[in-house]
Amino acid sequence: MTTARRDTYTPETLLAVAVQIFIERGYDGTSMEHLSKAAGISKSSIYHHVAGKEELLRRAVSRAIDGLFGILEEPEAREGRAVERLEHVTRRMVGVLTTELPYVTLLLRVRGNTETERWAMDRRRDFDHRVADLLKAAIAEGDLRDDVEARLATRLLFGMINSLVEWFRPEARGADGAEIADAVVQLAFRGLRVED
Amino acid sequence: MTTARRDTYTPETLLAVAVQIFIERGYDGTSMEHLSKAAGISKSSIYHHVAGKEELLRRAVSRAIDGLFGILEEPEAREGRAVERLEHVTRRMVGVLTTELPYVTLLLRVRGNTETERWAMDRRRDFDHRVADLLKAAIAEGDLRDDVEARLATRLLFGMINSLVEWFRPEARGADGAEIADAVVQLAFRGLRVED
Repeated sequence: MTTARRDTYTPETLLAVAVQIFIERGYDGTSMEHLSKAAGISKSSIYHHVAGKEELLRRAVSRAIDGLFGILEEPEAREGRAVERLEHVTRRMVGVLTTELPYVTLLLRVRGNTETERWAMDRRRDFDHRVADLLKAAIAEGDLRDDVEARLATRLLFGMINSLVEWFRPEARGADGAEIADAVVQLAFRGLRVED
Repeated sequence: MTTARRDTYTPETLLAVAVQIFIERGYDGTSMEHLSKAAGISKSSIYHHVAGKEELLRRAVSRAIDGLFGILEEPEAREGRAVERLEHVTRRMVGVLTTELPYVTLLLRVRGNTETERWAMDRRRDFDHRVADLLKAAIAEGDLRDDVEARLATRLLFGMINSLVEWFRPEARGADGAEIADAVVQLAFRGLRVED
């Protein structure tokens, strides 16, 4: 028998626990009971902090979404040639993914069964379009090749970046966020081949 | 009430149904009951074809694994400079992913709770290592840049290719397998930037 811990949670720390459980069990597969057990506090203590599990999901994915959209507001994402802005956004996306890993992981796994999930998918799609527009602008400015279709190039770029949630583990030895950002920019924009 | 269809399944067609359900519900979340309902035949009819759901999983992921390892046996993957062999493997991986989409999707989602899942993950890891070795050989031969660490480059390359299971829909209009293969090779090896 486990004794329920005294509730020393803040909405912030409770969120961190909830996100882990959502990732492990899937959002649909998580009950308030699971959250209560994982946090070691009663369900009524959780309800003291949030209205329910959907509020926890909304807060969690908001954190990822705010991080991503925040990139687009940075001066380096707003000024200069589109290709430079795109490289900045690429680099910073890797930054947000590595620092907000569980929140972005959850965002990428959301499937759209509830209003919050559908809202999150819409926001994610908006972000993808913003980046695709930047890529198109860089093609129009003659800095990116026009023989890879813009939408396909965006998908492959996101595929490369988003794969981080599958293999990046902050606690493990290996490349850190900055090294990964360099590698992604190098690979996506300059390619792996040694230039002739 | 649905009337059970007459069992006109072959192990092959039953597999196609099972793979869809495994993808939708997750392998752990799928019971023989779910499979029986989806196939419209009785559980005993399913047992006539296979020993159980783990055999269906093994057959399904084997199909993806055999497709991937088959690439490494092709002459273009065995002869010539490593960089050319790697480009061939990259292109053909896109081919296998697009033609065997549900089977590869399942392989990529397998998590390792049963012996079959652990076996599949081992085989997948073997394949990743074989490709990483090819990438290392291409660096050693001076054709690929050495400023992106080989293991990281392999992960990003796989991230890009494997993202197909998230967005490629064979029935939708849009790029086909050959166009995607071209785009992946272009992006990964030559980069998006127009060469100066």
